[in-house]
Amino acid sequence: MLDGQAALRKRANHQLEITLARPEIPSPLIDAMRYGVFNGGKRIRPTLVYLACEALDTDLSLADKPACAIELIHAYSLIHDDLPAMDDDDFRRGKPSCHVKFDEATAILAGDALQTMAFETLACDTQLTLQTRLDLIRELSSAAGASGMVAGQAIDISFENKQVDPVSLENMHRRKTGCLISACLKFGAIISAASPAKTETMEQFGQVLGLAFQIRDDILDVIGDEQTIGKPVGSDMSNEKSTFVSVYGLDEASRRLDQLLVDALAALAPLGPTARPLGDIARFIVIRSH
Amino acid sequence: MLDGQAALRKRANHQLEITLARPEIPSPLIDAMRYGVFNGGKRIRPTLVYLACEALDTDLSLADKPACAIELIHAYSLIHDDLPAMDDDDFRRGKPSCHVKFDEATAILAGDALQTMAFETLACDTQLTLQTRLDLIRELSSAAGASGMVAGQAIDISFENKQVDPVSLENMHRRKTGCLISACLKFGAIISAASPAKTETMEQFGQVLGLAFQIRDDILDVIGDEQTIGKPVGSDMSNEKSTFVSVYGLDEASRRLDQLLVDALAALAPLGPTARPLGDIARFIVIRSH
Repeated sequence: MLDGQAALRKRANHQLEITLARPEIPSPLIDAMRYGVFNGGKRIRPTLVYLACEALDTDLSLADKPACAIELIHAYSLIHDDLPAMDDDDFRRGKPSCHVKFDEATAILAGDALQTMAFETLACDTQLTLQTRLDLIRELSSAAGASGMVAGQAIDISFENKQVDPVSLENMHRRKTGCLISACLKFGAIISAASPAKTETMEQFGQVLGLAFQIRDDILDVIGDEQTIGKPVGSDMSNEKSTFVSVYGLDEASRRLDQLLVDALAALAPLGPTARPLGDIARFIVIRSH
Repeated sequence: MLDGQAALRKRANHQLEITLARPEIPSPLIDAMRYGVFNGGKRIRPTLVYLACEALDTDLSLADKPACAIELIHAYSLIHDDLPAMDDDDFRRGKPSCHVKFDEATAILAGDALQTMAFETLACDTQLTLQTRLDLIRELSSAAGASGMVAGQAIDISFENKQVDPVSLENMHRRKTGCLISACLKFGAIISAASPAKTETMEQFGQVLGLAFQIRDDILDVIGDEQTIGKPVGSDMSNEKSTFVSVYGLDEASRRLDQLLVDALAALAPLGPTARPLGDIARFIVIRSH
């Protein structure tokens, strides 16, 4: 992780701390919510929101709450994805999953409450105009809901023990991971009140980046180091899950990943030097080891 | 159910049909979402939103989407509450619960997506001003989240197999059921841009009504007809759950319920004759058989 990214990660963590300082929320609910959020996440999504704002010459403080809201949605989705009825993962980043550390009921409720908190955080962000707040809520609900992230997870579950064709696999990932990654970039455009052309640039970059992110994830499941990625390597294979590696093979998946990086950097070119850190995070996503 | 209420229930069902007509949502996710919403619910919450607007001389069409949003939150909470890890109810209104009809994973995701859709519905309601939409989102997120409804459910779970004192029991129900019932009335005030005094009236009425609703629920669990309420009578007792009846006894619980109705009607008095239908629904809630 680069220095600038580390600073933004720290900034995001600080904002999440403020947002989750809610003494009126009873235990163990608040503990489970905090556990799900402060689990050593890389904060890639908040960092993307910040960097998109930076690329568009916008004061980063305007991005604080929106960045936080996206991470709350991400955290909720991880808690629910790990549940026994879903992916049944007992570990997340090397630590017990939320439902293992607490219990299933508390984990379900913690996820539910984190989702609510994401929308509350946006609605209450008085730094932003009314229109900006509503545009962000619309974008987030569209990306996270039944046509986006949740649809992706539902389709993913329906793929279990099935051989899946490349188009269906990509459609699933576009929704499951891509929509929320893409929303980070759109958030930057919305907060910055960017021109349609710049908004389009951000959207394109976001879509390519989301797909690259998932392909790298699938590759890591095959070549990664268990200690570093915090879950058993090869778990996709042993679950007979279709992945970009199982569908294309490792070499072709790696080749596609390289091409996506080229596409992502090309998409950013019109934004000039302020977008360089966004290019750096695209490179980081493509070479990351966890 | 009264004629006026039946018409509003039909109106709410029609709005929910429109909101859930989303062909891009994949099956079985959309089917489970629809199953959770169209399960013979009485639509008490949407009806309250409509009647609150009527009491404040506001065009009902402005209440359509907000009424729908509250019911989506209610439907999501029922789906999640019925899950094996939560209340483990296999039946809801005499039909298999969502996780029985589909499966647990689909039920979790359907609940998640219905919550997202509630906020999306409010954010996209172009009939309302930006300020009104944001105020509604703030109210709904506060009522449904970790300080409100979800907190209530978490506290309820922590009460299992415990003797609970009356104050704790009331606090739990105030959050679990009361906050969302109360939000219906506040929604009416927000949509109507009501004066602080009228808003206060609505809040008071909502709080009393929420409590009355729960006490009636607890009484029905003891004296109700299994066929009519759609779940086994006495299930609270066999689950060793603390209820208003177990804490106060049936007579005292009934006496408190009667007093709450008097309080509710008194709270409405300043609003005059336009609030009569709200009074009627308070009476209906207190005497309802399911």
